[in-house]
Amino acid sequence: MFQDFSVQSRPEFGPPRLAELRTEMAKAELDGFIVPRADAHQGEYVAACDARLAWLTGFTGSAGFCIATPDQAGVFVDGRYRVQVRSEVDLAHFTPVNWPEIKPGVWLRDNLPEGAKVGFDPWLHTRSEITKIRADLEGSGIALVECANLINVIWADRPAPPMAPARIHPPEFAGETAAEKRTRLAADLRKQGAAAAVLTLPDSICWLLNIRGADIPRNPIVQAFAVLFDDGTVKLFAESAKFDADLHTHLGDQVAILPMASFTAALEAIEGPVLVDPDSAPIAVGLTLSDRNTKILWARDPCILPKARKNAAEIAGMRAAHHRDACAMVEFLAWLDAQAPKGQLNEIDVVSALEGFRRETNALLDISFDTICGAGPNGAIVHYRVNEATNRPVKPGELLLVDSGGQYVDGTTDITRTVAVGNAPAEARAPFTRVLQGMIALSRARFPRGVAGAHLDALARAPLWTEGWDYDHGTGHGVGAALCVHEGPARISRVSDIALEPGMILSNEPGYYREGVFGIRIENLIVTQTAPAKGDKRDQLSFDTLTFVPIDRHLIASELLSPDERNWLNAYHAQVLDQTGPHVSATAKTWLEGACAPL
Amino acid sequence: MFQDFSVQSRPEFGPPRLAELRTEMAKAELDGFIVPRADAHQGEYVAACDARLAWLTGFTGSAGFCIATPDQAGVFVDGRYRVQVRSEVDLAHFTPVNWPEIKPGVWLRDNLPEGAKVGFDPWLHTRSEITKIRADLEGSGIALVECANLINVIWADRPAPPMAPARIHPPEFAGETAAEKRTRLAADLRKQGAAAAVLTLPDSICWLLNIRGADIPRNPIVQAFAVLFDDGTVKLFAESAKFDADLHTHLGDQVAILPMASFTAALEAIEGPVLVDPDSAPIAVGLTLSDRNTKILWARDPCILPKARKNAAEIAGMRAAHHRDACAMVEFLAWLDAQAPKGQLNEIDVVSALEGFRRETNALLDISFDTICGAGPNGAIVHYRVNEATNRPVKPGELLLVDSGGQYVDGTTDITRTVAVGNAPAEARAPFTRVLQGMIALSRARFPRGVAGAHLDALARAPLWTEGWDYDHGTGHGVGAALCVHEGPARISRVSDIALEPGMILSNEPGYYREGVFGIRIENLIVTQTAPAKGDKRDQLSFDTLTFVPIDRHLIASELLSPDERNWLNAYHAQVLDQTGPHVSATAKTWLEGACAPL
Repeated sequence: MFQDFSVQSRPEFGPPRLAELRTEMAKAELDGFIVPRADAHQGEYVAACDARLAWLTGFTGSAGFCIATPDQAGVFVDGRYRVQVRSEVDLAHFTPVNWPEIKPGVWLRDNLPEGAKVGFDPWLHTRSEITKIRADLEGSGIALVECANLINVIWADRPAPPMAPARIHPPEFAGETAAEKRTRLAADLRKQGAAAAVLTLPDSICWLLNIRGADIPRNPIVQAFAVLFDDGTVKLFAESAKFDADLHTHLGDQVAILPMASFTAALEAIEGPVLVDPDSAPIAVGLTLSDRNTKILWARDPCILPKARKNAAEIAGMRAAHHRDACAMVEFLAWLDAQAPKGQLNEIDVVSALEGFRRETNALLDISFDTICGAGPNGAIVHYRVNEATNRPVKPGELLLVDSGGQYVDGTTDITRTVAVGNAPAEARAPFTRVLQGMIALSRARFPRGVAGAHLDALARAPLWTEGWDYDHGTGHGVGAALCVHEGPARISRVSDIALEPGMILSNEPGYYREGVFGIRIENLIVTQTAPAKGDKRDQLSFDTLTFVPIDRHLIASELLSPDERNWLNAYHAQVLDQTGPHVSATAKTWLEGACAPL
Repeated sequence: MFQDFSVQSRPEFGPPRLAELRTEMAKAELDGFIVPRADAHQGEYVAACDARLAWLTGFTGSAGFCIATPDQAGVFVDGRYRVQVRSEVDLAHFTPVNWPEIKPGVWLRDNLPEGAKVGFDPWLHTRSEITKIRADLEGSGIALVECANLINVIWADRPAPPMAPARIHPPEFAGETAAEKRTRLAADLRKQGAAAAVLTLPDSICWLLNIRGADIPRNPIVQAFAVLFDDGTVKLFAESAKFDADLHTHLGDQVAILPMASFTAALEAIEGPVLVDPDSAPIAVGLTLSDRNTKILWARDPCILPKARKNAAEIAGMRAAHHRDACAMVEFLAWLDAQAPKGQLNEIDVVSALEGFRRETNALLDISFDTICGAGPNGAIVHYRVNEATNRPVKPGELLLVDSGGQYVDGTTDITRTVAVGNAPAEARAPFTRVLQGMIALSRARFPRGVAGAHLDALARAPLWTEGWDYDHGTGHGVGAALCVHEGPARISRVSDIALEPGMILSNEPGYYREGVFGIRIENLIVTQTAPAKGDKRDQLSFDTLTFVPIDRHLIASELLSPDERNWLNAYHAQVLDQTGPHVSATAKTWLEGACAPL
């Protein structure tokens, strides 16, 4: 099993560790120290050695930070983690803080006197982050100062950094050689007047060099830094033991593998101007360059947009992965429909069975994130992850929400289905149908070039909005091609102004959550494409669906659907049956025929 | 008749006037001069004395400008006017320029040598406008310099400025006294640290002081400038002859009426900081203040948002005006349906008849804009205004698009209906229905507080987009309460990030245009409100419809409608019949019953 159901948090460890931290703060003459969840690569998941926030506080969420002062320890968490944090930290010693409503700068002003000094590790924070806190501290007399990482000092049995071997991402799935990418991006750098770009996001580096790894759970990446020069050469800073002879050959003589420890010295040696991403690079990178008076061009990591525009080979790989994953999902759903109504399963059983069906593909490298499996009221907790303490029986008459995905050599999947266990609860039909209508509206959308996620988000929400309903999460996130399941820069969200472009792969996942009762989410992945010519032959884009798995017909109030929506759903199910039917077991095939019958 | 169908443009006058302008340019040692459509108040309509662009070039559109150089005269017009400009100017002497694609700064670089000086009247251009042109001229050695208005010098028989009397906007329609508004806005100024705000938009001034006027066609405003001080007093710069004794009493001793000519001197006397709107105030205002080292706070005109948030009395007034206008529209549509199929009408007949029905209300102060009445292919010209040269027969079997509105003492209306003349053309039914679905989607929308027009625009377009169709104009504009029919700041448009707020009145007018064949637009006005409690009782807004006039059932492909859409339409028509039926003639009532029958 990839997924682990043990209770990770140990609140009782927090207070003695906090005391030790305060001792180190006093030694370093600091009145505060910031401990973020993030590592130097700003990823969503961190390696065990970088789980400083969880080690100090007990809080295991995927975002947040702690600020310790001599008499306070605020644990800053966002809306997803307001409940979870209270069960994971010792509330006598740690105080949850509602973030981003309460800004760290404002909290510091309330908790520290003028003249106070607050330390932070410049490798774990971006320039944008520190600039914002400093702006909020202006005039307060409180200073934010770079310092050594005090957690590293006190964490005696800190795990070693990950050392998973790197692997070649095969050219048939990459669609463009690393040399082509390096040449293309180097030309872009020259156009921008940059002599080099510093890359600190492992998925950017893995995309650029057509490599993958296993340093971080769920994300198939190699932990590394890199510098891309305007002649197309790259200095790659990573543990050399991860690269075998084949990798050396693959990377070629234009890519030098250098020790992680030499990264700072290499930065000092670069002739500017150097492109650095203010939103993702550690502020230490900028400080190192500024100390040498090297000119910095603050701009987005140059890999981010090219990586988001998937080429034909990447899309073909994603389709193949989705087909494989859909077959596993169909086996799973058929099994679930047969077993769950008996009332003997719990959430962990379901997650384990699903991982088992994916493993039976013999192609599963990892799951793409920890499965969200919420029975009944647990489905209403948007970021719920089952563990042994919360594990709930899957009861007939309730809903079950399962959000999961797989990492394969050719692609990354992410799918949510919500099913009725046994008889469908009548009260869930209208909300399920409204969620489905939103999902269909986005799936069917055609729109002019230039439209961003901010402009499309309402299409997925309108059917819910008109009932006085909504969901408190984005409608869709970018998805990597055999890379991270959450990938920027495009999103379907009111705050995303990045224009959608052909090749961008996004999730389409509206939902509805009735607290204490049930949760509904329906999620397919979609790929942006030039729309097939139609009507006035305007320059339009549209989405092509990658996910083909049945949507529970028992939960659909078909009288609410428009003719267009009904046609879409029937055509979708016909395609599911056509694509998946020939590749599943006889039992699953029989189930699938019923699940895909026209409405 | 308010509307005039004579051909206004006289291309033959342009060349001799251009020659005179060039003589003046030479005298003033200028290599160029900019002649904008705008007056000092940046309104959509201008008084006859301010129609400098039309006088010089012949071009009568509502936006654009001419730049004359010794051997070029570029007439910059946007997409709406690309065809019209070619028939209105003498193309041997004037060159149409595609604006904003071609920026004036870039055009100047192409047409003038280094060292050239281009003059402009600082009272007719905003700071934002001049700043943009100067940015594009940077490094070119071409200078933009303030100068006297050379058109005023050569325009011998220039009409006198408008002198229409001002009138009191009655408190029952304003809902808040001018004293209350002045006090409220003065408190806002103090909060912003401003000692005064310069107001140059007549509709802002009219709203603030609860006055109306008739200086400009279609817009019931008094041409004026004003300064609002942080103690709530106002200096009003306007022709004193417009204000009778009642007006003086109404304005009270906190409002001083001063000659327009004393405005500059008054600016020079203000102690700062002074709030000035960079997007609407003439750049002359800022220059005058800067010359005295008066501190300027560049910010939005402080009346704009409060004016956009209509209070209960304003909304009630708008409802009354819409009810009155709807009765006139129903009489008109019943007449049209009886007469048009005979094939004897032309577009001017239709516009004249419509104005006649509105006049029969005995309450019409003006039309709110020149009626757009396009028969057959003319309907596809989005900003079409019929004149004696373009007047087209209204032919059976074609569509007729009529976009019109009235100014009443209590409100301003704006409505578009597209009807089939006689038998409905079959090819128009699908596009008409898609437009209707977009109009319904926006009408029915509920959405969270914080949502802007940019987020809702797609709701109105999606039904068209999925057919490969679209329309090249915004979905909705703000509308004033007994004020200008086009009012900022909120819009339904991909580029509008102003959050919608209760009380904001907007148009909802998706369309579809098949060049050379027909045009379709359906427009109602809607008012933003706190949504009635429903579902999860989230903090949501919704729209309440103000316009109740039948939508042509003959053009609806009802098989395309969803159950929700059909229910909306039937409920809407029932409300039309209920509200309007008892107040129209017997003939119209009979027609209305058929027009409002359920689908």
